[in-house]
Amino acid sequence: MLADHMTPMKKVEIVVSGEHAGDVRDLLADYGSGFTQIAPVSGRGHHGYHEGRLLFNDASAQTMIVTVVQSAELEPLLEGLLPLLERRSGVAWVSDVAVARAAYFVRE
Amino acid sequence: MLADHMTPMKKVEIVVSGEHAGDVRDLLADYGSGFTQIAPVSGRGHHGYHEGRLLFNDASAQTMIVTVVQSAELEPLLEGLLPLLERRSGVAWVSDVAVARAAYFVRE
Amino acid sequence: MLADHMTPMKKVEIVVSGEHAGDVRDLLADYGSGFTQIAPVSGRGHHGYHEGRLLFNDASAQTMIVTVVQSAELEPLLEGLLPLLERRSGVAWVSDVAVARAAYFVRE
Repeated sequence: MLADHMTPMKKVEIVVSGEHAGDVRDLLADYGSGFTQIAPVSGRGHHGYHEGRLLFNDASAQTMIVTVVQSAELEPLLEGLLPLLERRSGVAWVSDVAVARAAYFVRE
Repeated sequence: MLADHMTPMKKVEIVVSGEHAGDVRDLLADYGSGFTQIAPVSGRGHHGYHEGRLLFNDASAQTMIVTVVQSAELEPLLEGLLPLLERRSGVAWVSDVAVARAAYFVRE
Repeated sequence: MLADHMTPMKKVEIVVSGEHAGDVRDLLADYGSGFTQIAPVSGRGHHGYHEGRLLFNDASAQTMIVTVVQSAELEPLLEGLLPLLERRSGVAWVSDVAVARAAYFVRE
C-alpha cells in the first residue's frame, strides 16, 4: 500500500500578525525548514483570553504559516518558536501527518 | 520536552459559502471561540453529492474557517454548528492538535 | 455524542505551483473527489532538498488544495496523485479527520 510507505511527520500551523510573519519565516529558515504561507487571513481571539488582551480582531491581517518537519526536528523547532510566539502574541498547534515524497522535507 | 507540555485540543475546519461565513463567525462568537478565516477559497463538490445538488462549483467563493477548542468544548460547539451547516450546505471536519500557548484557547 | 457520530476520513493537503494546480484538480475530478483550493499561497523549500533544486522560492505563487476522502479511497487516489506530484514537484501530506455531514464526501 502506498499509504503505508508515507512517512510520519509533524505539521506545525502558526498564526501570527502579518507584521511578525517575517520573524517566523526567518526562524524557519534558521532551522532549515520550508513553509507554506497563507496570507492574509482574518481572525478573532477567544473571549476570555487569559493574557488580558485580544490578539486578534476582525480588522487585523493575520498570516498562517504551515511547516512540516521530521518528528525529531519538532522539539528543536519549538524551542525557538515558542519564545518568539510569546513575544509576538502568536499561536501554534501541531498535528500528525503522513507525508508523500518525504525526501523533500528532510533537512541536510 | 516542550512537545509533551502542549495541550491536546480539537481543530475544527469549516468550509461554507462566503455569504454564510458571517453566520458561522457569529456562532463561534456565541461559544466564545476565536477563529482564523481564510477567504476566498474556491472549491468543487464531490461527484455523487447525496443531497442531489452541488454545494461547490468552480465559480463560487468559499470561505474556510478554522477554530481550535478544548476537547470538552467540542460537543457543545457541534450541537450548534451542525444544524447551521445543514441549513447552509457547509461542511466541517475535526482533527486532533497539540497546542502551544494553550491559555489563548481557553474560554473564560 | 455528536462527535461519536462523525465519520473517520482522510484529509489530503497538496501544495503545488499554481501553473500545475489544474492538473491536480483534473485528477481529483477523475476520482470524483471534491476539493477546496487556497490560492495563492507563498512558500519556500527546505534547505537540503534532496532532489538538488528548490521547489519553492519566496517569489513563487503556490496553491494549496485540500481534499477529504473516504479511507478506502485514499490508496487509489495516491496511486494517481503521487506520480503527478513527482512530475510536478508538488508535495502532499495525509491526516486523520472526523467528518460532519459525511454523505457530502461519499462518492457515487
